[in-house]
Parts: sequence; structure tokens; C-alpha cells
Amino acid sequence: MVVELLGVSDDWPLPSELPDLAPETAARVRASVARQTLLSTLGVNIERLAPGYVELRLASRADLMQQHGFVHAGALTTLADSACGYAAYTGFPEDRDVLTVDFTMSLVAPAAQPWVVAAGRVMRSGRTLTICRGEVYGIAEGGERQLVALIQATMMAVSRMSASA
Amino acid sequence: MVVELLGVSDDWPLPSELPDLAPETAARVRASVARQTLLSTLGVNIERLAPGYVELRLASRADLMQQHGFVHAGALTTLADSACGYAAYTGFPEDRDVLTVDFTMSLVAPAAQPWVVAAGRVMRSGRTLTICRGEVYGIAEGGERQLVALIQATMMAVSRMSASA
Amino acid sequence: MVVELLGVSDDWPLPSELPDLAPETAARVRASVARQTLLSTLGVNIERLAPGYVELRLASRADLMQQHGFVHAGALTTLADSACGYAAYTGFPEDRDVLTVDFTMSLVAPAAQPWVVAAGRVMRSGRTLTICRGEVYGIAEGGERQLVALIQATMMAVSRMSASA
Amino acid sequence: MVVELLGVSDDWPLPSELPDLAPETAARVRASVARQTLLSTLGVNIERLAPGYVELRLASRADLMQQHGFVHAGALTTLADSACGYAAYTGFPEDRDVLTVDFTMSLVAPAAQPWVVAAGRVMRSGRTLTICRGEVYGIAEGGERQLVALIQATMMAVSRMSASA
Repeated sequence: MVVELLGVSDDWPLPSELPDLAPETAARVRASVARQTLLSTLGVNIERLAPGYVELRLASRADLMQQHGFVHAGALTTLADSACGYAAYTGFPEDRDVLTVDFTMSLVAPAAQPWVVAAGRVMRSGRTLTICRGEVYGIAEGGERQLVALIQATMMAVSRMSASA
Repeated sequence: MVVELLGVSDDWPLPSELPDLAPETAARVRASVARQTLLSTLGVNIERLAPGYVELRLASRADLMQQHGFVHAGALTTLADSACGYAAYTGFPEDRDVLTVDFTMSLVAPAAQPWVVAAGRVMRSGRTLTICRGEVYGIAEGGERQLVALIQATMMAVSRMSASA
Repeated sequence: MVVELLGVSDDWPLPSELPDLAPETAARVRASVARQTLLSTLGVNIERLAPGYVELRLASRADLMQQHGFVHAGALTTLADSACGYAAYTGFPEDRDVLTVDFTMSLVAPAAQPWVVAAGRVMRSGRTLTICRGEVYGIAEGGERQLVALIQATMMAVSRMSASA
Repeated sequence: MVVELLGVSDDWPLPSELPDLAPETAARVRASVARQTLLSTLGVNIERLAPGYVELRLASRADLMQQHGFVHAGALTTLADSACGYAAYTGFPEDRDVLTVDFTMSLVAPAAQPWVVAAGRVMRSGRTLTICRGEVYGIAEGGERQLVALIQATMMAVSRMSASA
């Protein structure tokens, strides 16, 4: 018996091949991002929205640093967790919201670049739980990117709560 | 053969029983915290410093929220990761600094209280790696606390880098 | 404002202070353990059953080793994951079964002792998800124990499936 | 500024495009696998060895099950952790051995197939620590595979210990 095991790229299309997210769903994501005041405080922007795939961007800033002048792991985690959460959210019905159950962050290099981008994607979605992975890249002036962190996250679909709740 | 297994509390003293941290070490922790600009941006304060044990506190603020008005998981993670990192750091020699290798955060309840405190403690320290656990509590007006998150983290001792590096 | 933060031991009683598990619940746990053939293959025994708390034991054996003659991380993980899963299960209604969603294992020392015991306990239980922590100890001939691993795990309550499913 | 973010598959070649591992390194991996008695007990075989990439295979067996007749999470974890550990090991100098520091396993589907294969790959290797990711697939009779688990792992290079140590 021959089993071909071609790895991740066989199953998951390149992000560049992904279709755009339906406008109504994209609007729901943008509205939810706008309600997360910490994301505004850190300066997080939406870079790309696709079904099961979200990229968020952060500009390095003097008030977001750790003790050596690199972007703080807490800021990288906020970005990575949010990218995964919204990747899951793109697949939820309209009356559902997303909560993070847990995640693991591995920090593999300091983020010394002027920008940081986190890509989150859905690996498996069930009725209640959605499992995601994401990568955080430092982006240099010229656009070269370097892996700075990896996340593996479990998200939960919950009944939508009003923003004022 | 009878083996008595009395659990965590048998091995780890109550935080209230811990001695104070040596003043020089405490000064190094405070200086390092002060260099982390994200901690100032979020409003993180040191609550308690002891050997292998650190508590950090955050006041809930309108600009630190997720979409339902609770303290954002990214802020909770920043607090928890920092508490664990500094707990490890209290045991390092003077010429060493601390880097986070990885951590797992489990979010168990929304943080709706006016304050949040993260306690980080060393579970096992080796020459290179130190394994920590921490808890994040929401603190109500009256002082009652509620568990909101759990962290398990791996920290690494590295040669000290200058703050300007 | 003074907030007393007394840590884990304030909230969680010592295992030795825990009441015994109700006989019907204990019988359900024992029946479920007996159906897990890997646990029999490895030689896992139940050491203690209490509400939200389970200890499982494994005797070191020549066929359970890693490359240096210590108990293999895979065996330690099986023990730790099962202790956490059954700790969660003790709190479930009779028509529910337990599934592991995810866990993080930190390996802090080699398990060179003749026995290994894993203690799993519930940290927070919700309707669907239960968050647990556990420790794995190596137990020497004389009964002294040494921490060898830490686990943080997320468990899910699911509708009971028949053993033949 | 336009930043192209093409995701994982841009950076990591398909496993089928990877070169074979140098024979001496492959021999070291095979010798180390052979010393891990738990792997023999479970019936683990090497499926593929490439630089920074290892696949291990397990046949489902009646004595490796959880309570519903699926391959036990403990067996899946043993496979996934070993695939990641040996993927890291392929890049180590000859006098180094590999230890698992920690890992996170997410279980996304029951393993009901006759075979299970874990693929582990190196995401970032440093002097001391190597960060890996892996996937576990259930393999059906016809060769179709289904994702059953995800792992993210931190491995450490240590001075080689003798097998009798």
C-alpha cells in the first residue's frame, strides 16, 4: 500500500488563492474588530479577510515594546489570537460570536521590524469548537518577512451577546 | 506500599508565607518592568515580589476591552506572561535576562471586574529553562477574586542584553 | 485597598481533605478506565478518586521507555491526560462522556523512579468545557516524589456514546 | 506599501520535494527510535526521513484504544511528539540528543482508521531550542487521510547521553 502524504500545502490553498469574504460577513468582522478597544489602542488593522483566513497588521511603536526594544510578546499574542479568532468567526452563522478557549504561543524570534502581521487560519471547525493555527511575521521596510511566533488556538462559537452586555 | 500524595499545596508555600525578595533583585525587576513600554501603556503595576513568585496588577480601562466590554485576552496574557517571566527572573544571576519561549493560556471566565491580578510562580528551574504556572484573577470592588485565566509557561535565561540593543 | 492574594491553596483543598467520590460515580469511572485498552496495555491503575480530582499510577517497565531508559513522555502524557479527563468526568451527569479537546504538557525532569503517579484536578467547569491542571510525579522506593511533568488541559462533555460505537 | 503574505506553503517546501536525509543521520535516527521501547510496544514505524521532516506510522490495534474504540490520544501524542522530536534531531550535530521541553496537542477528530501517520517538521531551529509543528492523520484503507490532531512542540538539544545512563 502506498500512502501519499503531501503535508499541509496539499490541503490548505495558498492564502493568495482564497476567495474574498462575503461582504456581509466582512462587515460583521470589521464591526467586531472596531468594538475591541484594545485593538485600537495597539493600532491593529485588518490586512486580509478570506473564508477561514484573516491577516491583521500592527505597526511597531515605542509604546508597545518589551525591555530590549522589540515588540512585546503581549502585543504579538493579541494580534495572533485575534487573527485566529476572526478566522474562526468568518465561518460562524450570523447569530454567533467567538470566544477564545485557549491558545499556545511559541516565540521564535524577536520582532525588530517596523511592522508585524499575524495570519490566522481555520484547521478544523466543528459545531462548537474551531481549531486554528497562525503565524506572526515581522515585516521589514522592503517587505521581507521573518517568522517571529506561532500560535495554535481553540475557539468557541457562543450565542451572540450585545456589545453593551 | 502507601504513597501520600498531598498535591500542590504540600510543596509550594502559600504566597503569604514567602519571604520578601532581596532589595537588589527587586530593584532589577522594577527596572526591567519600567523598560517594558507596553506594560506602562496598559497600566501594569507590581503588586508583590517574592523569590520565584510575582504578582502584577492591571486596572480595567475602557481602552483595554474586547468586543463585549471585558478586559481583552491580550491584556490578560500580557499580565500573566510578565508575572511568570519575572517570577523566573527573580532566580536568575545578575548577568542574565529572561525570554519567553512559549506559553499556554486558558481563558476560563470573562474579566468583568475593576482590577485584574496575575500571579506567576516558578514550578521548576533548570540551568537554561524555567517552567512556571500562573493564574489571573478578576478582583471585585470588595476584594473578592474570581479565576479568569490560567497560564503554563516556559522561560529561558539568556545573556543580558543592554536596553539599547 | 488591600487585596489578599493567597494563591492556589486558598481555593483548592488539599487532596487529602477531599471527600470520597460517590460509589455510583466511582463505578462509572472504573468501567470507563477498563474500556480504555491502552491504559491496560501500559499498566495504568486508579490510585484515588475524589470529586474533581483523580490520581492514576503507572509502574515503570522496560517496555515503556524512551532512548535513555526513562519512562517515555508518551506514557507520562497518557497518564496525565487520563487523570485530567477523569477528574472532569467525575462532575458530569450520568449521560455524558468526556473528550479531550487539547492539552499542554511540560516535561520538567526525567522519570527514573519505579512508579509514576499523575494527579489531575478540575480548575473550572462550565456546561460544555472543563479546564484542568495536573502534575506527574516520579515515586521512589521510599515513597519520595519528584515532579516530572505538568499538564494544563481542556476537556469537553459530550453525549454518551456506547462502548461498541 | 504592498506586502505579499503567501502563508506557510511559500516558505516550507512540500514534503515530497524534500531531499532524503543523509544516510549517517538516518542511521542515527533509526538507532534512536529502536532504543525507545515504548515505540516498539505501540508498533511505531518510520515512514519518511528528510532534513527537518519526519513521518511515523502506527497501525490501529485493539490494545491501543480509548473507551469508544478509537486510537487513544496517548498513542497519537506519542507518535506526534516523536515525529517532532526526530524532525528536530535530524538537524543536530552528532554529539547531541533531543529532549522534549513541552508541546500542545489539539485533538480534532477521532482516529477510527486502520493506520495513523504523524508528520513532524521543524519551523525554527536555534542553538538550544527547536520549534516544531506536526499533524496526525488517520489513513483509510484506500489511502485517504483525515486530520485527527495537531501538535506544536519545543525541543531542546542536549549533550548526548549513553543509552545505559
